[in-house]
Amino acid sequence: MIIKSQDQVSQVPVDMEGAVDVKVQVMLGPSDHAPTMAMRIFELAPSGHTPFHTHAFEHEVMILTGSIAVVTPEGDIPVKPGDVVLVMANEPHQFKNVSDTQNARFMCLVPIAYQT
Amino acid sequence: MIIKSQDQVSQVPVDMEGAVDVKVQVMLGPSDHAPTMAMRIFELAPSGHTPFHTHAFEHEVMILTGSIAVVTPEGDIPVKPGDVVLVMANEPHQFKNVSDTQNARFMCLVPIAYQT
Repeated sequence: MIIKSQDQVSQVPVDMEGAVDVKVQVMLGPSDHAPTMAMRIFELAPSGHTPFHTHAFEHEVMILTGSIAVVTPEGDIPVKPGDVVLVMANEPHQFKNVSDTQNARFMCLVPIAYQT
Repeated sequence: MIIKSQDQVSQVPVDMEGAVDVKVQVMLGPSDHAPTMAMRIFELAPSGHTPFHTHAFEHEVMILTGSIAVVTPEGDIPVKPGDVVLVMANEPHQFKNVSDTQNARFMCLVPIAYQT
């Protein structure tokens, strides 16, 4: 059994094309021998966002803090803490902090094979 | 893409031997066509707890609210909101609300094949 608090896990900038002011903590991943899914926490600085992109695997997301919009080809969808999002494989998506003063955080799970 | 708030998902009592005052919401599961993991939110009434048990699959947990102890064969481990827990397959475990006045909630993911 592995138990961790968030202040025990280092937070690193997301170095990915299209990501702006995003940091990530891998809470549970390959180094923990998580068998199926990797659990990550993303923090968006004010107006920060993940890339608008697609990939061949799904996301399972829970919004933790702040004011976030999920960007889709059909428009932006506002979400609040406690909301969950299932992004299917190959669906275009982006997570955007709509506040210009406060950080926002969300948990995002991916199949373990896709966690580098 | 599926987006849900917690108040859109029905909460049902957990009818499992050893479970006391536990309710569950399946936030993302088979009916959503989640490919890999099911995301559930458990709510423990004051002094409520899940069974002390084992099973052939892992849990990935994040504590959401309240004061919870993870019960293990080596003793109880207190956890707080934001903490994460990886329970490996076949590890004995129980989640117990240590407050006798307030509810406690945690998110718990399991491989989709084990979500009924």
